Amino acid sequence: MPKINPGRLIGDLKRLAEFGRYKSGVHRPTLTPDDVASRHWLAGRLADAGLEPEIDGIANVIGRGRGSGPRLLTGSHTETQNYSGWLDGALGVIYGLEAARAIAESGELPGAVVDVAAWVDEEGHFGHFLGSRSFCGELSEDEIDQAKDRTIGTGMRDALAAAGLAGKPRARLDPKAYVAYLEAHIEQGDWLEANALRIGIVSSIVAIWQFRVTFEGVQNHAGTTRMAIRKDAGVTLTRLCCEIERRFPEVAGPRSVWTTGRITLDPGAPSIIPGQAEMLFQIRDDNPETLLRMELTLFELVAEANSAGPCRVHAEALRKSTPAVMDGNVQAAFEAAAERHATGKHTRMPSGAGHDAQYFAKYMPAGMLFVPSIGGISHHFTEDTKEEDIVLGAQVFTTAAAELLRTAK
Amino acid sequence: MPKINPGRLIGDLKRLAEFGRYKSGVHRPTLTPDDVASRHWLAGRLADAGLEPEIDGIANVIGRGRGSGPRLLTGSHTETQNYSGWLDGALGVIYGLEAARAIAESGELPGAVVDVAAWVDEEGHFGHFLGSRSFCGELSEDEIDQAKDRTIGTGMRDALAAAGLAGKPRARLDPKAYVAYLEAHIEQGDWLEANALRIGIVSSIVAIWQFRVTFEGVQNHAGTTRMAIRKDAGVTLTRLCCEIERRFPEVAGPRSVWTTGRITLDPGAPSIIPGQAEMLFQIRDDNPETLLRMELTLFELVAEANSAGPCRVHAEALRKSTPAVMDGNVQAAFEAAAERHATGKHTRMPSGAGHDAQYFAKYMPAGMLFVPSIGGISHHFTEDTKEEDIVLGAQVFTTAAAELLRTAK
Repeated sequence: MPKINPGRLIGDLKRLAEFGRYKSGVHRPTLTPDDVASRHWLAGRLADAGLEPEIDGIANVIGRGRGSGPRLLTGSHTETQNYSGWLDGALGVIYGLEAARAIAESGELPGAVVDVAAWVDEEGHFGHFLGSRSFCGELSEDEIDQAKDRTIGTGMRDALAAAGLAGKPRARLDPKAYVAYLEAHIEQGDWLEANALRIGIVSSIVAIWQFRVTFEGVQNHAGTTRMAIRKDAGVTLTRLCCEIERRFPEVAGPRSVWTTGRITLDPGAPSIIPGQAEMLFQIRDDNPETLLRMELTLFELVAEANSAGPCRVHAEALRKSTPAVMDGNVQAAFEAAAERHATGKHTRMPSGAGHDAQYFAKYMPAGMLFVPSIGGISHHFTEDTKEEDIVLGAQVFTTAAAELLRTAK
Repeated sequence: MPKINPGRLIGDLKRLAEFGRYKSGVHRPTLTPDDVASRHWLAGRLADAGLEPEIDGIANVIGRGRGSGPRLLTGSHTETQNYSGWLDGALGVIYGLEAARAIAESGELPGAVVDVAAWVDEEGHFGHFLGSRSFCGELSEDEIDQAKDRTIGTGMRDALAAAGLAGKPRARLDPKAYVAYLEAHIEQGDWLEANALRIGIVSSIVAIWQFRVTFEGVQNHAGTTRMAIRKDAGVTLTRLCCEIERRFPEVAGPRSVWTTGRITLDPGAPSIIPGQAEMLFQIRDDNPETLLRMELTLFELVAEANSAGPCRVHAEALRKSTPAVMDGNVQAAFEAAAERHATGKHTRMPSGAGHDAQYFAKYMPAGMLFVPSIGGISHHFTEDTKEEDIVLGAQVFTTAAAELLRTAK
């Protein structure tokens, strides 16, 4: 069994966290100078490990192993949300690197290869999973032309040119080349911690269904308009929100989540009755039937609101993704490795967040492994994972990778 | 009894509405070129009526009558909200002008005088009742220095200079000079229309109590954070809104109004559980006990929300005005005149909106008269009042003014 080197693993994670250090976390948005520097550092570490590094035309960093035996693809992302945590996707990239090193050093699998990648912009500064979609052939030149950084507005073409990547070709996946795609990530929730577990084996990545609900009433003077004749779009909106909180627990699954992330009252002045209002509402689950049941309930509540009056309510779906099911063999390999290194301390679970693996799952067997997040904190500079859990996760990841390579047809 | 001239009255209102004409309404914000032009036109019409016109250092237009007998002050405002109605305050200014003309022409009250004013910026483009507060001595130079147009950001000093008023002194009220202050306005609500009434005699101008309610939860990932452990500030906010709608009808008075005009969720992104939220909440009534009962209920609901958890809720009063009671003699004079010209078609009622009269009521007997608003529409270009109601209101206003001058000690 290939054994990882905990000092090297933690050392690389800590070195990577120096690029864009912010308090106890990291501020390293996609294609900022800190991010570009970290990609060159990563390319160097891939070369140190005997892999052939490439930074392609969209800034994906890919290290390819030399060898003609079975080949695994591992990866995640290294850029961060603004003022965010040090692990997040960086953990998955360095796990891949450590697995490649440990398997090569073990000499147990001659010719077997672990490729390691950092897919650009999983965090969505410029778009929507640009790096993995580019590698999977799902990203047009036109979408790159249009992409702008959501915080500072820089065009992606300008950012790529500033990074010295203008005109470079974009690398493309050959799905037949790989046994599977493996990705590790912090859990970003508290399920593992709350249940005293140390390893999560992702069964599926949930679907996200997003809705815009609009409310049309009548704008009027907040002093002279009697309560009895008001058509207050804000009152109708908050009533719908309360009905959602009352009814959804009855129809949701045990892991369903629903969120109203934005509310806007128009015109939004203290002395004016809101004539229009809008909310963005999102549901997530990995079970299509549960999603449909929640969607149906939303539309029932909207219909009830329209019957009750006095405002008109309209809901429309903005986005409906499908759940990405993780490969059964990969889950089994992760589970066997977890049982070996952390007996009884692992579970299968869906991922509530989106990950690059959801794209790879369309083209090849794909699987994901989670390590616990302390306090469930994510996308914040205080995000952290116990060092013993980081080390354990890397060993489970590496053992499973070796097993998948060993048993590859 | 002095008789008004309906053709002259309507003609002046229609001419004034040409300044900043927008669809069937008017767009004439304070100190815009259209507004400044309308002030010069008004000064001319005051002079035509034998009054001595002045545009003072804050752009109040004041026409003073020549005469040593009892003196009334009448007024309202001529600027409009953005893209708003043609009558609103303009009605009150032209009513004053028509009363001054009709009383002078009647020869019934030799030496008696009606002064006519258009107080600047009642609509609050630059501040808070700037014109009437300036005239009453409640406005500092410093506040004028700081004042900026809320739509386009122009400083008030620059706007006054552009209007040729830089350095001009500001006129000041001598309360002893006047028998009373009279102001007419459209109702801005539908109470008169709904009850088939034609004249409203304002008993008081309601107090406005405004609150900021803040909600503190924990910002987190909308996919990975289980429902059971969420501290969603937005959910707590909408629940409080629903409780307000449930409980306030039990404690409010028959004319109380309450409004949540603005809601903000922070950070306001579809995939992030709101960690903080805020709402602006306003109550209005003319009864201090009712106001206190509503405020107490708000704080009870906030306390209940804090007990229920999981977010912390805090409410603070931003502004608590006192109701402005209209003078009993002035109300009686309006009522007698209304009974004479519109028998049984008048009522005493509070004003749900603020008006310049609330400042004058502190220094002298003050009263207000309302005419019906078609459909209760206000601050919109479709605002209107039937011509027969406009004419009737002016006659009631003039008859009452004459009676107050006749009986002045």
